[in-house]
Amino acid sequence: MEKKGTPLSELGEFGLIDHLTNAIKLQNDSSQLGVGDDAAVLNYKNKKVLVTTDLLLEGIHFNMVYTPLKHLGYKAVVVNISDIVAMNAIPKQITVSIGVSARYTVEMLDELYDGIRLACEVYAVDLVGGDTSSSLTGLTISITCVGEGDDETLSYRNGAKDTDLICVTGDLGSAFMGLQLLEREQKVLKEVGGVQPDFAGFEYLLQRQLKPEARLDVVKSLRDKNIIPTSMIDISDGLSSELLHICKQSRVGCRIYEERIPVDFQTAKLAEEFNMNLITAALNGGEDYELLFSVPLKYHDEIIKLPQVRIIGHITDESKGAFMITRGDETEIELVAQGWNGLG
Amino acid sequence: MEKKGTPLSELGEFGLIDHLTNAIKLQNDSSQLGVGDDAAVLNYKNKKVLVTTDLLLEGIHFNMVYTPLKHLGYKAVVVNISDIVAMNAIPKQITVSIGVSARYTVEMLDELYDGIRLACEVYAVDLVGGDTSSSLTGLTISITCVGEGDDETLSYRNGAKDTDLICVTGDLGSAFMGLQLLEREQKVLKEVGGVQPDFAGFEYLLQRQLKPEARLDVVKSLRDKNIIPTSMIDISDGLSSELLHICKQSRVGCRIYEERIPVDFQTAKLAEEFNMNLITAALNGGEDYELLFSVPLKYHDEIIKLPQVRIIGHITDESKGAFMITRGDETEIELVAQGWNGLG
Repeated sequence: MEKKGTPLSELGEFGLIDHLTNAIKLQNDSSQLGVGDDAAVLNYKNKKVLVTTDLLLEGIHFNMVYTPLKHLGYKAVVVNISDIVAMNAIPKQITVSIGVSARYTVEMLDELYDGIRLACEVYAVDLVGGDTSSSLTGLTISITCVGEGDDETLSYRNGAKDTDLICVTGDLGSAFMGLQLLEREQKVLKEVGGVQPDFAGFEYLLQRQLKPEARLDVVKSLRDKNIIPTSMIDISDGLSSELLHICKQSRVGCRIYEERIPVDFQTAKLAEEFNMNLITAALNGGEDYELLFSVPLKYHDEIIKLPQVRIIGHITDESKGAFMITRGDETEIELVAQGWNGLG
Repeated sequence: MEKKGTPLSELGEFGLIDHLTNAIKLQNDSSQLGVGDDAAVLNYKNKKVLVTTDLLLEGIHFNMVYTPLKHLGYKAVVVNISDIVAMNAIPKQITVSIGVSARYTVEMLDELYDGIRLACEVYAVDLVGGDTSSSLTGLTISITCVGEGDDETLSYRNGAKDTDLICVTGDLGSAFMGLQLLEREQKVLKEVGGVQPDFAGFEYLLQRQLKPEARLDVVKSLRDKNIIPTSMIDISDGLSSELLHICKQSRVGCRIYEERIPVDFQTAKLAEEFNMNLITAALNGGEDYELLFSVPLKYHDEIIKLPQVRIIGHITDESKGAFMITRGDETEIELVAQGWNGLG
């Protein structure tokens, strides 16, 4: 972690902001003015403005021992973009505030910003502002993402209706298993020391944990097909917890089928190796940033044509509760929120 | 600082968010949806959207020994509102993210949010989102403020013109002197112990440091008189530093007059007691959150009628440089940026 480099004090606050932001080119029409004044100026014309924000703290949300700074910058942006996408909207701008202790160098922040800039490029988002400050301990990253939507196409958490299909994108539990893998290797490293970690065969899990993606592709696919989800949320705290949010806010129940929950081969393999329950990882493992959404039954034939989307169950009347039907014996197990809880 | 109370873990993350935000009523038309979904939804119609953000870290930006939590919450909101106001725009929404260590209780966060809510009320701003997380050390507050403006009335840093009048609001250096006072009392408290601090006669300085205000009143007064500043900035890092920002971005020079710089009686009195140079405090002391702006000469007679505003000099051609003309002997002293530098 520690390395030689240029101390931040050499540039000073304004010098550092210039250094980190001078290469930025604005790409969205709605970005009228970016970094350099008291506030950014955005031009949203007759669109609705979406705003979301996330705070990431070293030692709580990320561990510098195994998180490359470039990946961290990328992920910090993606988790915010994911929240805009989860409204069925399009991300357009971010602001980035960082607090850094003296053990960080200019070169380290350059790596962090390389990841931030890469995410901006991949998702066509403009960095339009922020704040830079020293901190007493470690790294703090606060990102706000602004996006655009229309009243007609926004998806909230409260619109799911009885008989709607419940859909998820990608696969679940892999980011959680990636974290287990990284934590095991960190322990081995501490106890044995100097050993090169062996992640062979589990590269996908590491990527899911360290460099997740937001499902802007799915939002665009749904738009192409004129499908507007009746409810939508991104899976940051685990499928179970997020589905309960939708049920609670929509005043509905649900049935999902264990055998339909999408799980990757590497996730299954590592769960076996760790002697962990695979379906628990898929239900409660956080940080997948996949989308969970509901659509009216009539879209069934359209939805099954989308390769990134899987139908896992359906919405019911509220009185039926929220249950998963197990594989094989078809027992109904009540869903409970066991998501990550930063204050627990 | 430490006191008995309800541990945060008793409520959990979602419980805590509910607890802190359930009393919130949205008051602005542009606040379509607040807390409770993946993102807030704002409706800015044909207005421009202003966005600014600030990160406040315990031990860097505030000292819990002498900062009441309610004041801290108020100030954290005000410093962001001040950035929107400094664009000659109207603040409308904020998001608040906090990271808190286990030594904070629910009751302590209630105090913090009392201050946040009070600022929202005073400035007619809606709290529409945020993030709550545990932290390993102390308190982290990240606030983003969104506001509304029109292209015709926004004031940037780059529009000052030769012969424009340079104006400041309120008085300068008082927040800085308030900080000196608090730091002296903290030192006394450490050395002697148990002594009740004596702030008699300096209450205004404490208020300026602990509970500053944003000059939304001045922006409204200027609007009433149809005066649009050619440039504007808020004074967070000291008059000298902010004036140099305007000169650099507008490619102009300036002359300000020492005798015209507004200083409060308490500031002068404490500077004398501390044997500090009063004008240095006024030029370089930060955190006043007053406005510095330029207006065309033709508004002179209108401006002098505004009780909160003082003309301190004028803009010149860039080649003339940026200088202060001293009281009495009328020496020209070059202005230098010595503002607060969080990374220094």
